[in-house]
Amino acid sequence: MTTETAPAKPEYKVVGTRPIRHDGADKVTGKAVYGTDLNLPGMLWGKVLRSPHAHARIESIDTSKAESHPEVRAVATFRDLANVEDRIEEVGEDVYTSMKYIRDNILASDKALYKGHAIAAVAASSPHAAEEALDLIEVEYEPLKPVTDVESALAPDAAILHDHMTTASLGDDSPTGTNIASHQQFILGDIAVGFEQADVIVEREFRTKSVHQGYIEPQNATADWNSDGKVTIWCSSQGHFGIRDTAATVLGIPVSQIKVVPLEIGGGFGGKLASYLQPVSAVLSRKSGSPVKMYMTRAEVLEASGPTSGSHVRVKIGVTNEGKITAAEGYLAFEAGAYPGSPIGGATACMFSPYDIENVHIDGYDVVTNKPKTTAYRAPGAPLGALGVETVIDEICGILGIEATEFRMLNAAREGTRRVDGVVNGKIGMVETVEAVRSHPHFSQPLGESEGKLRGRGLAFGFWRNNAGPSNVVAGVTPDGKVTLNEGSVDVGGSRPAVAQQLAEVLGIPVTDVNPQVMDTDSIGYTSNTGGSGVAYKTGWAAYEAAQDIKRQLIERAAVIWETDSDNVEYDDAILRHKSDPELSIAFKDIAPSLNATGGPVVGRGSVNPMRGVGGSYAANLVDLEVDPETGKVDILRFTAFQDVGTAVHPSYVEGQIQGGAVQGIGWALNEEYYMSDDGEMLNATLLDYRMPTSLDVPMIEAVIVEVPNPGHPFGVRGVGEANIVPPLAAIANAIHDATGVQLDELPMNPASIVKALNSKKTS
Amino acid sequence: MTTETAPAKPEYKVVGTRPIRHDGADKVTGKAVYGTDLNLPGMLWGKVLRSPHAHARIESIDTSKAESHPEVRAVATFRDLANVEDRIEEVGEDVYTSMKYIRDNILASDKALYKGHAIAAVAASSPHAAEEALDLIEVEYEPLKPVTDVESALAPDAAILHDHMTTASLGDDSPTGTNIASHQQFILGDIAVGFEQADVIVEREFRTKSVHQGYIEPQNATADWNSDGKVTIWCSSQGHFGIRDTAATVLGIPVSQIKVVPLEIGGGFGGKLASYLQPVSAVLSRKSGSPVKMYMTRAEVLEASGPTSGSHVRVKIGVTNEGKITAAEGYLAFEAGAYPGSPIGGATACMFSPYDIENVHIDGYDVVTNKPKTTAYRAPGAPLGALGVETVIDEICGILGIEATEFRMLNAAREGTRRVDGVVNGKIGMVETVEAVRSHPHFSQPLGESEGKLRGRGLAFGFWRNNAGPSNVVAGVTPDGKVTLNEGSVDVGGSRPAVAQQLAEVLGIPVTDVNPQVMDTDSIGYTSNTGGSGVAYKTGWAAYEAAQDIKRQLIERAAVIWETDSDNVEYDDAILRHKSDPELSIAFKDIAPSLNATGGPVVGRGSVNPMRGVGGSYAANLVDLEVDPETGKVDILRFTAFQDVGTAVHPSYVEGQIQGGAVQGIGWALNEEYYMSDDGEMLNATLLDYRMPTSLDVPMIEAVIVEVPNPGHPFGVRGVGEANIVPPLAAIANAIHDATGVQLDELPMNPASIVKALNSKKTS
Repeated sequence: MTTETAPAKPEYKVVGTRPIRHDGADKVTGKAVYGTDLNLPGMLWGKVLRSPHAHARIESIDTSKAESHPEVRAVATFRDLANVEDRIEEVGEDVYTSMKYIRDNILASDKALYKGHAIAAVAASSPHAAEEALDLIEVEYEPLKPVTDVESALAPDAAILHDHMTTASLGDDSPTGTNIASHQQFILGDIAVGFEQADVIVEREFRTKSVHQGYIEPQNATADWNSDGKVTIWCSSQGHFGIRDTAATVLGIPVSQIKVVPLEIGGGFGGKLASYLQPVSAVLSRKSGSPVKMYMTRAEVLEASGPTSGSHVRVKIGVTNEGKITAAEGYLAFEAGAYPGSPIGGATACMFSPYDIENVHIDGYDVVTNKPKTTAYRAPGAPLGALGVETVIDEICGILGIEATEFRMLNAAREGTRRVDGVVNGKIGMVETVEAVRSHPHFSQPLGESEGKLRGRGLAFGFWRNNAGPSNVVAGVTPDGKVTLNEGSVDVGGSRPAVAQQLAEVLGIPVTDVNPQVMDTDSIGYTSNTGGSGVAYKTGWAAYEAAQDIKRQLIERAAVIWETDSDNVEYDDAILRHKSDPELSIAFKDIAPSLNATGGPVVGRGSVNPMRGVGGSYAANLVDLEVDPETGKVDILRFTAFQDVGTAVHPSYVEGQIQGGAVQGIGWALNEEYYMSDDGEMLNATLLDYRMPTSLDVPMIEAVIVEVPNPGHPFGVRGVGEANIVPPLAAIANAIHDATGVQLDELPMNPASIVKALNSKKTS
Repeated sequence: MTTETAPAKPEYKVVGTRPIRHDGADKVTGKAVYGTDLNLPGMLWGKVLRSPHAHARIESIDTSKAESHPEVRAVATFRDLANVEDRIEEVGEDVYTSMKYIRDNILASDKALYKGHAIAAVAASSPHAAEEALDLIEVEYEPLKPVTDVESALAPDAAILHDHMTTASLGDDSPTGTNIASHQQFILGDIAVGFEQADVIVEREFRTKSVHQGYIEPQNATADWNSDGKVTIWCSSQGHFGIRDTAATVLGIPVSQIKVVPLEIGGGFGGKLASYLQPVSAVLSRKSGSPVKMYMTRAEVLEASGPTSGSHVRVKIGVTNEGKITAAEGYLAFEAGAYPGSPIGGATACMFSPYDIENVHIDGYDVVTNKPKTTAYRAPGAPLGALGVETVIDEICGILGIEATEFRMLNAAREGTRRVDGVVNGKIGMVETVEAVRSHPHFSQPLGESEGKLRGRGLAFGFWRNNAGPSNVVAGVTPDGKVTLNEGSVDVGGSRPAVAQQLAEVLGIPVTDVNPQVMDTDSIGYTSNTGGSGVAYKTGWAAYEAAQDIKRQLIERAAVIWETDSDNVEYDDAILRHKSDPELSIAFKDIAPSLNATGGPVVGRGSVNPMRGVGGSYAANLVDLEVDPETGKVDILRFTAFQDVGTAVHPSYVEGQIQGGAVQGIGWALNEEYYMSDDGEMLNATLLDYRMPTSLDVPMIEAVIVEVPNPGHPFGVRGVGEANIVPPLAAIANAIHDATGVQLDELPMNPASIVKALNSKKTS
């Protein structure tokens, strides 16, 4: 085993500190404006009529009675959105289909594909009148049999959601209807050879239910369609440029005709990347001539905004007696919900990435079901892949008698390892993460005992690839020596300081002297979504570039003042110096008031779209828990979460992200699920029944930051928001196995299922 | 006489066209948000207690009863503003004094210096409660004798406004108190010699009253002082950076702690450069913890926001019999109002600038009086100087029998002429403006007659120097090939299109593809006020630079796409071309969607602060009118206004500016005045009594654009907003003289004064 050492972390002055967040006062005093806080003069209220059926053909929609309601100002159906049907010839079948999917999920046209599917919308002078008018809309449905999980959707007699979806796309000669939207395959080496080399082979099968991101703030949108054709949309989202682009597609107008103003966001976790109400409020505003505000109830959020997939996963791993993995195979079928697009790709690309495996074969299936269209949820798909891989590895370690971290060290992915998606790892932190686990007190501390309870410890690893995208920062020096920082990245978890710190680091100024603002789509360059753990990476980089642009200009200004050439001036640590005259120097603070007089205000710009350089993150969880064998209740006793984040720009928010991912993972592992009736109704569409962990359910999560700087970023940033949710499902399953001797293969591992498993173990 | 020819105007595609303004729909549909349209949740209403005395010592202010009013949330006096007294040692006497002036005009400390002077302010839950509470504030005054015009302020026994103001600053050995705040002198050559060379010398004396800009929208401000110390101020103004800077001084906090959000402005004309309510609403918000909205009533606007100066002017000009001016002398005393700072400098610098005169002597006095502090009003001061100069010249032409334009041609300032302020003229347009007058049909058309009325024609010229200042533009290319244009210049008269046109011209795109936005002080680089006719000049230039920055980046991106060097790519007329491969070209519209993929969004920045290059403007008016000898009423029959604007970026708005200046000049000449009682009360503080011209009072003003491009600007822009108000006072006086044979020497030339003059002519 070679020991890789991380490059020494450079000495930073601002990066790595823990300043108070710039939006802190607004957040704690209630001043911050969230989606539904906005009220405009003359505003109407919009409500959505939703399908009572999980699967039905829509025969007709008659809105005439609702339109005659005295307080109703506009009614909208899919007919008011872009007529994508007319554009088939222009854009081609595939683009047409994807446009129709997006539009139909916003307002259904020919079919209702899940209970809660939006059918029509009303704008009225009050929310009550709007609700009342919904009852006046007459929809004729032809109900169809629903399919609400991936296995029944793949059954030979399954009802087919989309008529045009056939097995032809899967290569069938005599195609039939299918609910498989796509099949993807990753192959490395030859698993037949690999499994032949194996001494031990373990194969297991897993089933999980749909779960929701559970953000606190419901989906919302307020729109104002101006008489000159420009529409302004205010909403919280994880990316107002993405919301703008979707609205443009669904409304059939150019992107520059739409301005999306970002409001503060009360949680997203991937679920606020998609668009629901924005185009609807826009079209209601266009038809009524007034601003229209809309928001979802909690039940609507759960029933009609995207959860993540329920899944059916098989994992098979072969190892030598020495513990070297020789082959790994995965079968994953993910629920897409009503329209294609499950996070299957995130699962298949990441599941085996902690390891260096020569022979791999993965089949992934994206399967439509009669549930809301899935959207991203924190490291989309990866936790489900890791659940299979990490529990199988745990079982293998038990069979071989190899200590779990020893096994990981032996098989760890390293710099140069090829991943299944073809990416050859750059400098990565799997080994350092394993080492961090091994050297942590939790690792060696005895588990202890508790009378009448079963205690266990579990360990699991996980990987998330992270992401980037285009981003723009514009930063200006104020006459009193501060810096305004305009960015396009929505701040979901402290990215204002994280981006400001990177700008401050370059300029050598305190981060409190930087004033970050999230700008609307007309006021900053295109900035991709706040997702993929990409903001500190991409927008931090854009801020780095903007700061460099400021530095260059400050050097030019000092050169003007000193009547010399720019080459004779250097900027270091917030001081400009004449290189050949040690008498001449001027501090950032002191040149700031002179900028107007030396050529006008200094404003720097930075644009990036890093194509290479994004660094994946490794995470590990060490979890102690106890199971009450009588009730099946699981108590998490201790939870230590490790994650390589590259460079922790703001350690407090890094820790918060790690803790948050752990808590969401605990909920997913133990309690959360879409509990569906046979006819496709979610029976637990309230936060009382959809049971997320509360502060009473989890211990203090200890976050251990591992820092293996990413050479593909000026400050070594990797991304921090997602890898942390990858290991918990498996770590908890392994801990329960350790405690009870039972390996559970279905989520959630709630009291009922644990009692059932313990009973069947007794009787077996 | 040499004939100067203007350089040929380049062929522009966008500059010089008349697109619909970008804010047009908002303005005509009532969607545009003006100062008082803003309402915030939990907002309070602020009202100001104003001095009933024109001049009084403030003995005490007791706010305790007002504070106990159940609906009052905060009361403010000068004690809540910056304690500038404590900073005398730090900043020195002069800076202290100017800070105290600014602060005391916002909330008086030791003296009330005009009726309407703000003494205290109240924030309450309704405007009515706030007004009610004003009555509970107890102020003890020691009334003093007021001085309300410049001559009585200069009288030996005049009451002195500011105790510290003495004749010491005027060089007196045994100084006494004075109301002269400053004396400025311009001397060229030797007037004694000049007047000796003269064959004819005419000297006349003029008196004018205070007049107001008369903007429709009252002064306003809403402020929200956040718990983290940041304060946001929303208001209409002619420059939110200036408002921010003043607020910082008056509140005693750094500029970066204040964000000023510009709202639409309903007229300014110089009067919305100064700050009145902004710091007061801020301090009331700080004390109450809630947002506070304030606005002035019409009477408050007239009584407590700055008008322009009443004046006392003497002009003496000597000429040879051939009509060559040999010497010119000016004495000007301008009312500053309560605190120093009349527009005396604008008058003295510009009055003789249409002419090339060897010997000039000008004395200008800035005189404080018990009236609201004057602020800028369109070409500040210049109309009053021109009134004297142009009527005296008219008289001289009559004496010598030289036709008026012939006289101007003989004496016209040209390129290379030195002005009294030391500026040597660059390429200027005086000669071209005279020629435009001479070649216009109005010039040669007979005046005609009207039974019982006296008809006359008047001609006058005028000059305004224009101004610039720092400005910043940030512009971004959208994926659908449009351009966002972020600027810091408030748009008072169509500068959105005028700036956008200059950006569009550089990029070769339609101006309708540019989306201009006026940004708040945190969102764009420092941009100086919308004043001095400077926006199309400076912000247009900044847009030019931002467009060049975009061009450079587009060239780089095309080079990336074509895998070549940037030097091999050129951009012309919205098309990028590979210089050595004629097959390779890509249009602006077509590369726009590829920018994210080739390095991220393209955002250009442009900053300027033109120190040289600002080009002055010449204007002339030809006016026909008739006087009813019975009533003294003047009817303007025909009004042709000529102005050299350099390049007319948007001719419609140039014409609008020229017409607007003419109309304001007509009101100033014929009707407008602050009609003061002996104890210093304005007796006509309503728009019914303060008589501005209505559409019934003026004919269609014909605007004649003269274009002598300014070599000091990329597109030859000079500035268009102000020169047009310089000639009307004199042109109308000359026309009345032509009609009646009476040369009036006081403004306004209202019916009463004309009847009086006609009567005294009869009796003389």
